[in-house]
Amino acid sequence: MINFDFRNPTQIVFGKDTEMRAGELASEYGKNVLLHYGGGSIKRTGLYDKVTSSLKAAGLTIFELSGVKPNPRVSLVREGIRICKEEKIDLILAVGGGSVIDSAKAIGAGAVYDGDVWDFFTGAATPEGAVPIATILTIPAAGSESSDGSVVTNEEGWLKRAFGTPYVYPVFSILNPELAFTLPTYQVACGTADILAHMIERYFTNVTNVELTDRLLEAGMQNIIIHGPRVLEDPQDYDAWAEVMWTGTIAHNNLLNTGRIGDWGSHDIEHELSGKFDIAHGAGLAIIIPAWMKFVYSHDVQRFAQFAVRVFGVPMNFKDPEQTALEGIYRLEEHFKRMGLAIRLSEVEITEDSFEEMAEKGSAHDTRTMGNFVTLDKKAILAIFKLAE
Amino acid sequence: MINFDFRNPTQIVFGKDTEMRAGELASEYGKNVLLHYGGGSIKRTGLYDKVTSSLKAAGLTIFELSGVKPNPRVSLVREGIRICKEEKIDLILAVGGGSVIDSAKAIGAGAVYDGDVWDFFTGAATPEGAVPIATILTIPAAGSESSDGSVVTNEEGWLKRAFGTPYVYPVFSILNPELAFTLPTYQVACGTADILAHMIERYFTNVTNVELTDRLLEAGMQNIIIHGPRVLEDPQDYDAWAEVMWTGTIAHNNLLNTGRIGDWGSHDIEHELSGKFDIAHGAGLAIIIPAWMKFVYSHDVQRFAQFAVRVFGVPMNFKDPEQTALEGIYRLEEHFKRMGLAIRLSEVEITEDSFEEMAEKGSAHDTRTMGNFVTLDKKAILAIFKLAE
Repeated sequence: MINFDFRNPTQIVFGKDTEMRAGELASEYGKNVLLHYGGGSIKRTGLYDKVTSSLKAAGLTIFELSGVKPNPRVSLVREGIRICKEEKIDLILAVGGGSVIDSAKAIGAGAVYDGDVWDFFTGAATPEGAVPIATILTIPAAGSESSDGSVVTNEEGWLKRAFGTPYVYPVFSILNPELAFTLPTYQVACGTADILAHMIERYFTNVTNVELTDRLLEAGMQNIIIHGPRVLEDPQDYDAWAEVMWTGTIAHNNLLNTGRIGDWGSHDIEHELSGKFDIAHGAGLAIIIPAWMKFVYSHDVQRFAQFAVRVFGVPMNFKDPEQTALEGIYRLEEHFKRMGLAIRLSEVEITEDSFEEMAEKGSAHDTRTMGNFVTLDKKAILAIFKLAE
Repeated sequence: MINFDFRNPTQIVFGKDTEMRAGELASEYGKNVLLHYGGGSIKRTGLYDKVTSSLKAAGLTIFELSGVKPNPRVSLVREGIRICKEEKIDLILAVGGGSVIDSAKAIGAGAVYDGDVWDFFTGAATPEGAVPIATILTIPAAGSESSDGSVVTNEEGWLKRAFGTPYVYPVFSILNPELAFTLPTYQVACGTADILAHMIERYFTNVTNVELTDRLLEAGMQNIIIHGPRVLEDPQDYDAWAEVMWTGTIAHNNLLNTGRIGDWGSHDIEHELSGKFDIAHGAGLAIIIPAWMKFVYSHDVQRFAQFAVRVFGVPMNFKDPEQTALEGIYRLEEHFKRMGLAIRLSEVEITEDSFEEMAEKGSAHDTRTMGNFVTLDKKAILAIFKLAE
C-alpha cells in the first residue's frame, strides 16, 4: 500500500423523493441558484417542476442555463461563467448526468478566475476556488456527482480535456434511484459499463498489499454485475436501481483508489475511439476493456485469476492459472453482451483502416504512453485495436 | 435500502512518516494548537518529539493537555475547554487512540458552548459548533479518527455517555501504521475485535436490499480476520498493519452503514460488562458477540448463513442452512481464540451472580430495550449472559 491523502467532502442525500430537499439543502449556500441542465428530459419527467418548486419554496432566486450536450462544450461553460459573475450566483445546481455536472464544475471554477476557463484544461492555470456546485443525478454512470474532476470539449479543434481540483467536489448530491426509471435501455447499459470500468481501472495495479481495496473493489464489481441486468430487465425496480446508483458513486469517489495506482489505459484508448466515432463512452469501454485484458493479462496472471475467481466465481485452476484468467475475461465479455453491448469494433462498424490514425493520435506520434499496469506505446495500442476488431 | 444522508469530511493522511506533516496540516487552521494525549507512551516512542518538532517548524504555538485515561473523564475535558477558551485555541490535535480522540471531541464542542459540556451527553443541549479537532492515530480500534461520536465518563456517578454531532468529525487524521508497532499484544487483539465488531453490528440488519453494503462489510470483515492474526504474529509487519488500520477507519466512518440500520445490542450489553468489571471493550465484545449470535440467529438463519459463507468461506449446507449459520458462529469464536481473547465470561472470572444486576441496569429496570435486529429486553439480556457463561 502506498501513502495516500483522501478526503471526499460531498454530502450524499440518497433515496426516494430526495429531490424535494433541493431547496432546503441549497439555501445553506446563499440566495442565487444557477440551475444547469441539458435538454427537455427533465421537463418531460416532471423533475424540473419539482426542483424549481422546491427552490422557490425555500425563497431562492433561480437563474437558468440549459443546453448541455453529451460532450459538454466550453462555449456553454463560458456563458455560465458570465451569468455567475453578473448575477452573483451562490450555488450552481446541476440536474442531469456526468456531462451536466462536469459543465457545472467548469463553470464553478471559472467563475472565480479572471482568465479564460480553458486555461484549467490546458494546465496554464490551476483553480484557486469555485462557486459551490451541487447535483441532482439522473444518470448513474460517470461518478461525477462525488468526484473532483471535469471533462469538457473545446469546439475550436474539438479538444476533449480534463481538469481536477478539490474545489469542485459537489457540496451535496441528491441521488434518487427513481429518477433513473425513464432512462433509455442503451444508456442504462452504457452507464453500468462505465461504472464497472471505473472499478476495473482501479483494480489492475502493480501496487502490492492492497487487500482491503481489492476486496472493496470486488464487492462493487460483483454488485454492478448482478444488478446491471436487473435494471435492464425491469427499469422500475427501485431496489436494483438503488444498488446501481450507489455503486456508481462509490466506484469513482476515490475511496476505492486509496493506497493504489489505477491503470486508466482503457479509458485513454476509449477516448480516441469516441473522439473519432460517434460512440458512447460506456459502449466504447465494453469493446476496449476485454481487448486490453487479453493484451496485458500475462503481465500478472495471478491478479487476473483473482479477478475471475472473486468477481465471477470462476473455480480456480491451480495447475493452470492462465486458464482461470482467460475465463474471467470471457465472463466479462458475456456480461457486456448480456447488457446488450457490442464487444467487438466490427459490431459497431469500425474497421481496421482507422486503427493507425487513432493509435498515432493517442500516442501523440509515439511520444506519449498510456496505462500504468502495463505501459502502452503506439504498437501496443494498435495491437489492442486488433484484438478488439 | 432506506433513504440516507451521508457525509464524512475527514481528510485521511495515510502512510509512512505522515506524522511529520502534522505542522503543515495544522497550520491551515490557525496558530494555537492544543496537543492532547494520554500518558508517557508517545514520549517513549519518540512520537511526541516528532510531532512537536513538526508543529514548531510550522510556526505554531503549542499548548498541552495530557493525562487522558482509557475511559476519558469529563473533568479533564472541562480542563481542556478552559484552556481552549483562555488561549484561543485554533485546533485540538489528539495524539493517541479512541479515548484521547473522544476527549478532544468533547473539548472541541464544549469550547464554543457557554454551559457545561456534560449537557451534550445528557441531551440537555446540542452542539452548535466546535473548535476543529485533528488526530494522529496510534491505536487502530475505535474508529473515532473518522467518526462523529464521542464517549466520555463522568466521575460523579461513573456515568459513561455518548454524543454525536457532525461538528466533531476530525478535520484531518494522520494514520501511520508504523505507530502501531509498539502496541501491547493484548491491546492489538482487543482493537481488532472492536473493528470487527463495528462491522458485525452493521451487518445484522432487518433492512432488505442492502447488497452493496453487505458486500463491502464482508470485504472489511474478511480483511480484518486475515490481517489481525498477522499483526499479532509479527508486530513489525507494515503491510498487515496498514490493512488493519485502514479497515478500522472504514469500519466505523458510517459509509458501511448507508441505507441500513445496525443492531448495536452487543455494544450495549458490553457497556454493562465493562461498566461493572475492569475488562477492555474489545475483550468484552469477543465474549458477548458469539453469545448474542447464538441467541438471535434463528431470527434470520439465511443472513447468518450468508455471514458464514461469505466471510469465513463455510460451504453452504442448502438442506440445512442452520448448520451453516452455526458453523459461522463457531468460526468467529475460533478467530477470537486465535487472537488470544477469551470467549466465555468464566475465562475472565465473571460469574452468574452478576448477571441479574447487569441485565437490570442495562434494561433500566426492564423499561429500556437494546438492539435493532432483535429487540432485547431484560430476560433476553440475561439469556445472552447465560450463553456467554
